[in-house]
Amino acid sequence: MPLRSLLLLLCGFGLALANPSCPASKPGMLNVHLVCHTHDDVGWLKTVDQYYYGAKNDIQMAGVQYILDSVVRALLEDPNKKFIYVESAFFFRWWDEQTEGMQKAVKDLVTRGQLEFINGGWCMNDEGGAHYNAIIDQMTLGMVKLNQTFGRAGHPTIAWQIDPFGHSREQASLFAQMGFEALFFGRLDHDDKSNRWRHKTMEMVWEGSQNLGKSAWLFTGVLPNGYGPPSGFCFDINCRDEPIMDDPRLHDYNVDQKVDDFLKAAEDQAKGYASDHIIMTMGEDFNYQSGDMWYKNLDKLIWHVNARQENGSKVNVFYSTPSCYLKALHDAGLTWPTKSDDFFPYASGNHSYWTGYFTSRPTLKGYVRKTNNFLQAVKQAASVLGMGQDPRLERLKEAMGVLQHHDAVSGTAKQHVTNDYSERLSQGVSESFQMMTEAYSTLNAAEGGDEGGPEAAIVFCPLLNVSSCPASEASEAFTVTLYNPLARPRSFHARVPVPGGVGYKVTDQQGHAVVSQLVPVPDAVLQLPGRNSSATFELVFLAQDIPPLGLLQFHVQRTANLLFQKEQMSQILRPERGVKDIEVNLGDQGLAVLLDKDTGLLKSIGVVRPDGITMIKVNQTYLWYAGMSGNNSQEEFRASGAYIFRPDGAHAKPVAAAANVTIVQGPLVAEIHQVWTPWVSQVIRVYKEELALEMEWLVGPIPIKDGIGKEVVSRVIWPDISTNGTFYTDANGREMIKRVKNYRPTWQLHNVEPVAGNYYPVNSRLVISGGPDFQAALMNDRSQGGTSLDDGHMELMLHRRLLHDDAFGVGEPLNETAFGEGLVARGKLFLLHSDFASDDCDFGCLHRSLGEKLMLEPVISFIATTKPAHVWRSSVNAKWSAVTRSLPANVHLLTLEPFGTDALLLRLEHMYEAGESKQHSQPASVDLKGLLADWEVTSAVETTLAADLRKEDLHRYEWKVSSTSRQSNMIPRTQRNASGDTEKDLVVSLQPMEIRTFILTVKKLSP
Amino acid sequence: MPLRSLLLLLCGFGLALANPSCPASKPGMLNVHLVCHTHDDVGWLKTVDQYYYGAKNDIQMAGVQYILDSVVRALLEDPNKKFIYVESAFFFRWWDEQTEGMQKAVKDLVTRGQLEFINGGWCMNDEGGAHYNAIIDQMTLGMVKLNQTFGRAGHPTIAWQIDPFGHSREQASLFAQMGFEALFFGRLDHDDKSNRWRHKTMEMVWEGSQNLGKSAWLFTGVLPNGYGPPSGFCFDINCRDEPIMDDPRLHDYNVDQKVDDFLKAAEDQAKGYASDHIIMTMGEDFNYQSGDMWYKNLDKLIWHVNARQENGSKVNVFYSTPSCYLKALHDAGLTWPTKSDDFFPYASGNHSYWTGYFTSRPTLKGYVRKTNNFLQAVKQAASVLGMGQDPRLERLKEAMGVLQHHDAVSGTAKQHVTNDYSERLSQGVSESFQMMTEAYSTLNAAEGGDEGGPEAAIVFCPLLNVSSCPASEASEAFTVTLYNPLARPRSFHARVPVPGGVGYKVTDQQGHAVVSQLVPVPDAVLQLPGRNSSATFELVFLAQDIPPLGLLQFHVQRTANLLFQKEQMSQILRPERGVKDIEVNLGDQGLAVLLDKDTGLLKSIGVVRPDGITMIKVNQTYLWYAGMSGNNSQEEFRASGAYIFRPDGAHAKPVAAAANVTIVQGPLVAEIHQVWTPWVSQVIRVYKEELALEMEWLVGPIPIKDGIGKEVVSRVIWPDISTNGTFYTDANGREMIKRVKNYRPTWQLHNVEPVAGNYYPVNSRLVISGGPDFQAALMNDRSQGGTSLDDGHMELMLHRRLLHDDAFGVGEPLNETAFGEGLVARGKLFLLHSDFASDDCDFGCLHRSLGEKLMLEPVISFIATTKPAHVWRSSVNAKWSAVTRSLPANVHLLTLEPFGTDALLLRLEHMYEAGESKQHSQPASVDLKGLLADWEVTSAVETTLAADLRKEDLHRYEWKVSSTSRQSNMIPRTQRNASGDTEKDLVVSLQPMEIRTFILTVKKLSP
Repeated sequence: MPLRSLLLLLCGFGLALANPSCPASKPGMLNVHLVCHTHDDVGWLKTVDQYYYGAKNDIQMAGVQYILDSVVRALLEDPNKKFIYVESAFFFRWWDEQTEGMQKAVKDLVTRGQLEFINGGWCMNDEGGAHYNAIIDQMTLGMVKLNQTFGRAGHPTIAWQIDPFGHSREQASLFAQMGFEALFFGRLDHDDKSNRWRHKTMEMVWEGSQNLGKSAWLFTGVLPNGYGPPSGFCFDINCRDEPIMDDPRLHDYNVDQKVDDFLKAAEDQAKGYASDHIIMTMGEDFNYQSGDMWYKNLDKLIWHVNARQENGSKVNVFYSTPSCYLKALHDAGLTWPTKSDDFFPYASGNHSYWTGYFTSRPTLKGYVRKTNNFLQAVKQAASVLGMGQDPRLERLKEAMGVLQHHDAVSGTAKQHVTNDYSERLSQGVSESFQMMTEAYSTLNAAEGGDEGGPEAAIVFCPLLNVSSCPASEASEAFTVTLYNPLARPRSFHARVPVPGGVGYKVTDQQGHAVVSQLVPVPDAVLQLPGRNSSATFELVFLAQDIPPLGLLQFHVQRTANLLFQKEQMSQILRPERGVKDIEVNLGDQGLAVLLDKDTGLLKSIGVVRPDGITMIKVNQTYLWYAGMSGNNSQEEFRASGAYIFRPDGAHAKPVAAAANVTIVQGPLVAEIHQVWTPWVSQVIRVYKEELALEMEWLVGPIPIKDGIGKEVVSRVIWPDISTNGTFYTDANGREMIKRVKNYRPTWQLHNVEPVAGNYYPVNSRLVISGGPDFQAALMNDRSQGGTSLDDGHMELMLHRRLLHDDAFGVGEPLNETAFGEGLVARGKLFLLHSDFASDDCDFGCLHRSLGEKLMLEPVISFIATTKPAHVWRSSVNAKWSAVTRSLPANVHLLTLEPFGTDALLLRLEHMYEAGESKQHSQPASVDLKGLLADWEVTSAVETTLAADLRKEDLHRYEWKVSSTSRQSNMIPRTQRNASGDTEKDLVVSLQPMEIRTFILTVKKLSP
Repeated sequence: MPLRSLLLLLCGFGLALANPSCPASKPGMLNVHLVCHTHDDVGWLKTVDQYYYGAKNDIQMAGVQYILDSVVRALLEDPNKKFIYVESAFFFRWWDEQTEGMQKAVKDLVTRGQLEFINGGWCMNDEGGAHYNAIIDQMTLGMVKLNQTFGRAGHPTIAWQIDPFGHSREQASLFAQMGFEALFFGRLDHDDKSNRWRHKTMEMVWEGSQNLGKSAWLFTGVLPNGYGPPSGFCFDINCRDEPIMDDPRLHDYNVDQKVDDFLKAAEDQAKGYASDHIIMTMGEDFNYQSGDMWYKNLDKLIWHVNARQENGSKVNVFYSTPSCYLKALHDAGLTWPTKSDDFFPYASGNHSYWTGYFTSRPTLKGYVRKTNNFLQAVKQAASVLGMGQDPRLERLKEAMGVLQHHDAVSGTAKQHVTNDYSERLSQGVSESFQMMTEAYSTLNAAEGGDEGGPEAAIVFCPLLNVSSCPASEASEAFTVTLYNPLARPRSFHARVPVPGGVGYKVTDQQGHAVVSQLVPVPDAVLQLPGRNSSATFELVFLAQDIPPLGLLQFHVQRTANLLFQKEQMSQILRPERGVKDIEVNLGDQGLAVLLDKDTGLLKSIGVVRPDGITMIKVNQTYLWYAGMSGNNSQEEFRASGAYIFRPDGAHAKPVAAAANVTIVQGPLVAEIHQVWTPWVSQVIRVYKEELALEMEWLVGPIPIKDGIGKEVVSRVIWPDISTNGTFYTDANGREMIKRVKNYRPTWQLHNVEPVAGNYYPVNSRLVISGGPDFQAALMNDRSQGGTSLDDGHMELMLHRRLLHDDAFGVGEPLNETAFGEGLVARGKLFLLHSDFASDDCDFGCLHRSLGEKLMLEPVISFIATTKPAHVWRSSVNAKWSAVTRSLPANVHLLTLEPFGTDALLLRLEHMYEAGESKQHSQPASVDLKGLLADWEVTSAVETTLAADLRKEDLHRYEWKVSSTSRQSNMIPRTQRNASGDTEKDLVVSLQPMEIRTFILTVKKLSP
């Protein structure tokens, strides 16, 4: 074959391989990929609905419906034009309004690669405050819908986190597992960026997991200019840059200057990047409402810039997409640097650490986490009871999808938008309460009412967090139902708000009396503004062994028996100050706590063991940082605000030197009620059977009459322990990541904000290690910012109230109020120590298993009844489980939800990291066969993490890297056939931290 | 034939007549015509180019290119949608950028009636400050282009003056003559509007002329809401009203409320209107940049509002246009009220009389008028020399078109925009100078240079108004060429700026010496900031009998002959104050002037007659009103500004009690140089052969250091004359209209602004009448505001300098500066009195013929030469005329311009009103045959006034009216066959005030 023919053949082959929808680049030139895009916040300054419709344009001129209208029109008119769209929450709202003809046309655009979905989740989620469970859910919600609507063409291949304020390694790992080819983002520490620009390492391969190897690798690119266009080239109706004025007869002709400017911008940008391709993001927040403005000017720009090639210009510019850009990078065959830590914290300037939002709006963050708990339970119930994709469930999923947005759970939206977010959660939860009610009826677990109506009056009490529940407060008798969303049995101390002056008999489903204790509600809670409840006590009892994915019911009956009441009542002690240290424990098991005699504060803790108690010194205090005031006119005058944490001074002030202490003790729980100030109080709890110190904090209304905003932290100090500035925080509730004070692994940090610059997001736990025998974990119930500023310190920020905006757009100081006062927040921290470990459960097991329990607590509901316990017991199904057996102790049932008709979406997660637990960091396996009590699994198709692509259809690019990081925590992986093993025998094996996703076809077993 | 068939036939006939593009209305319902429109100022806050491109959006978010892009797209997508477009200046800029395919599509839209051109002129012209010559030109420019592009479908039938600040009867008359069916506008006096609303007389038939009868009738509608939508229904991207939010699942659903609001708005509006149709203008300034927003919400609104009909609603709403609305009104067969005065002045509130803009920016207004003069001359030259539609001429026409905009010549644009306007005029004029140069070369009139280059160095001196001209100042010898754009010979006193210390010999084309006089330039002019000239004198000579449409050249040679110089030099007298009154006259003819001995001010005037001089008492003074300061927060705090004239107090303060006087006298002219203050001076001139008192004023820099804005007027007072508050002002330079102080003909005026509320636009003259023997006219050289506040008073405002914005949008105080000081303006007034009349020329003849002369003065140019006079005389064509004969004394050649190839546009105007002049108010006739010296007129097709429609194709609606006004000035009209008489014999007959428009086909005669 002559050489020429061979070349032609090769060229033909090359052409055949090329993505036909990607524009041709010119070798030897600087190829500029113009990416037309809009960044549509799923709520921020306006609510998500206001943004969709373009309402309240006095706040911000933004209407997403018009963006999609106008862009689609432009794309249909010109096949050369391209656009990417991110937020499925908006897209599907628009889609549902279109005619069939328009839907068909849009499908063609997607197939032709003109309209490319990118990210594809319900929103562009926050990475600091979002929990991995919610991230996976929200991505799945969007991506599955795209898949169902557009098929494979709708599968997003690029993750696009252009606006979130810092980037999590776990997010990268999850994206990789979802099959994304690459991630692009806009925000990283300004010094990190300059450094990368200088070294042309703006693009890299991110090793997203220290456990999962290449399957968690993700090509990652830092965008050159946030997500905006080069200066002077924003052609949106919201922009003020000059348009291309190309009629030389008219005044203001500016084409030559514009082209010069563009060529310079392109050449400047090329300096920071390794290949001869660069990407320019031609869009901004809510751009393209009048898309024609952008496209018309870009058309002219492209034409005039490329026309310069005739005069020797080496710049070639065209419409492209990130996936086409990525393909060009891949085709370039370069070797790329790697990254194995994360991009937290994000500092946009020396004094602007975006670490405030890790804590901003703690009640919203708590509500989101609580709702995730509830959502998982409802999805499970809907799955095992065959309720299918109920629209009410979809709305709750959508609400949670919206809440993961990087201005939602982040706490950085305006107050009115935050109110709307809360309302969404509330509506979603309320509707799902109905579903749970129906589920209980189906199970005959709800027939509690005497009237025998078709549906029992099941009451879910969303205000249990302020010890308020009308059902339990007003009824002579009621049942308490606990649904356990874990795939293993668990015990749980139920706490039921009740009035005092009477006793309560608790009976289990076997008719046995259950030990219970009446605990007084702390004064600070009783006095909460807006609390409308007659409950002055909480009735505590242990719900023992609630079945996996199952429910357990108890009967509670008021009794006037004074003796009974007296026995049930907790002992109340008010120790005299300064006499002697106060030791609190429950005698034969559980934890022991020692309080300082002078201050009433925690002094040491230990475990009650048969051989006695070894106490470990530990202090815990509340402090506050003064939020910096400032007009933000210069970086030095930056104020602490919704995004930014900037304390005025490096040292936090103690809220109080001492606390008033009341000891409340009984058979089940010992509580230390501490009142520090009128606006900070705490309950420290020691439950008989639990080896975790519970600290329930109540903070607010934070006083601001002194004109000082305050940021309140809880700090645990282990004296005499050296931690060398090292601590560990979880990433989105999954893998732990090492932090070192005043240090960044990949560049030289010059930190002038000694506190804020060391804050990191803590979604579930902060861990320190003081040598082989000392490990401690501080677990939380919502995302918070945390750090360790000194040896043995563990610090979490609980609440913030500030008087200045930080000038990053939200335009309001973070000054939450309710009932005319500063907002009060209440939440829990849990303290664990390696000394609490046992042969059965090492330290890794301690925090992982507690983490799982906190993530998915039992869902409690109440039914008023007049039936006595024995009648109730015979009339309802008071104990039930959806599974025939528990999952292994190291496997977490991450997802079980209806997936279309006769199918379920299942995710199993190995919940340990390699090396974290001797017992539990081993591979696990789960046999799906016979697992569900009422359903036969007829097939299991493994998919990528977001369930929109069969695992066997995933073929990601390979990237050459310069080096890979030491992954010391990794244990060797056994080789496994990636596809199909489960299809044969339905046995799922899992390596540490592995999540496997399946679509199960199921068939109802005959009863 | 059975009755039923007959009915069917009639119905069929009715249907056949209906405009198929108009939407069907529903009888028995209130039919709401939604008119989608945009109001695109041809410059205001931004320049016309900035508006077109959408540049400088920081000033105002407005980009016309996107409006047309987006609207056309919307219309193409949905045949139910309609849009109207007004400004041809913008439309054709856009049109020229479109592909052929798009042009074809737009033609279809126009043909289908979806896109309707409305008004169709180059701009929506000002009605207060625009001269009829320029109005006709700018309308013709747009409408002819529309005709050439879209044929008959492009002919606008509706005049649409929605924004101008007051409405002129002459404008209505011109529109009627252009064939418009109706006029709609938005602004009228607020009390007039309430009155009309109450009486359902918002719509009427306007009798536009007191001379022209029904041909000047125009159906006129006042729009209900300015030109905006009802409150709450502005859906533009620039608006902040809430969109229709129609998804009940989402938060903020508002459809029911919106529909309720709309129905209420419609019913409220119907109260002011007579028929069961109402019009709603759905648009505002620069709306529809993102047209989809408007249309999408209107689609929803229409759907939901009409859906209410099922529930009994009697409101029917649809997309419509003003022409469809008008058709519905016509079909209603109602009888309409009439109107025979005008809508001046416009008051938007008790203290907001929009009468300041009649004078605002006097130098711009003067420049516009001067440029009209030049434009007419260039068009004539291009016509008779066969230069065709030269692009340079087109640009000047376009510049003048732009300048007629209601924020251009009105003086109400921002300063930077005003600068751009001036630059446009300057560029247009400069380019046309080239054309005149080429014309002169063609005529061999320009061979003045010795070098014998291909083109002579012809210099037009645009700074003659400050007595500056490099050509005449620097040359030992030069020629002076005067082109006379009148169709009759005229004489003209040329004034040539020259240095002193030397004499100047003037020679005519026959070799005769011409009497000349050296007049010193007043000190105030010599000291003008920015004046850069060596001329200290003006050489005055009489250019006798410049031929009609022709030129006459003179030779000027410096001479050192001292005797000659001495004879030529004016005598200078500085009369002693207080000794005796100073009489100034030129001896045997012309005017005589008497100055008061104490003040030096005008005391009386008279005509020098063989039988002596009868002096008439008349004073003239300069005064200033203090412009009201105010923050405009309420109507009482309205400030005087670019739009608003609001003096602080009813009495103007004299600029000075007396003036320093210098008398300058010679053989041709006597001048009284008065210096009133350093910022007000005046030259009163008496020319030997002219019976008009010329008063050249120079005002500025108006001092503002006292913090007081000042509005300077010239007031002429005829003592002892009673005028009973009555005076007359011209309408746009044509018909006179009667004004009565503190009175409006059609409603009860409660005037709380005794000065501003009596100001009216004066485009050319203000006339008073004090009985059968007393009539006086004050003529001006540009548009000004004027009034008569007391018996015998004639007052014109000359200049304004203000320190506050008046809060009607321009956002700047009217504080013009130049060279670091307040702007100096210079202009001329001319005073006529019935006593100056003669048997040959009565008072009507005096002011009409002077008016024509001021409107079209000779165009002067200069050529430096070294040839002595006798050589020059033999080498050039120093006298030439394009016509073989003059037009009759009462016929004005209004237009002669190239019209495509081998055709000319000709307009002849009878320049007298009926009864105005005994000699000249008679019918006239003009024979076109043989009129042009070098061209044979082979045919003449009469058209409507804007030349876009054959007269014979015009068929306007007939309207039933309740009464017609007495038209006392009208003389009976002879019946004439409207079409075709000229086609036969080329003889054009004209009735008083009639304008007839012809497209002449011409053929060049062999030389």
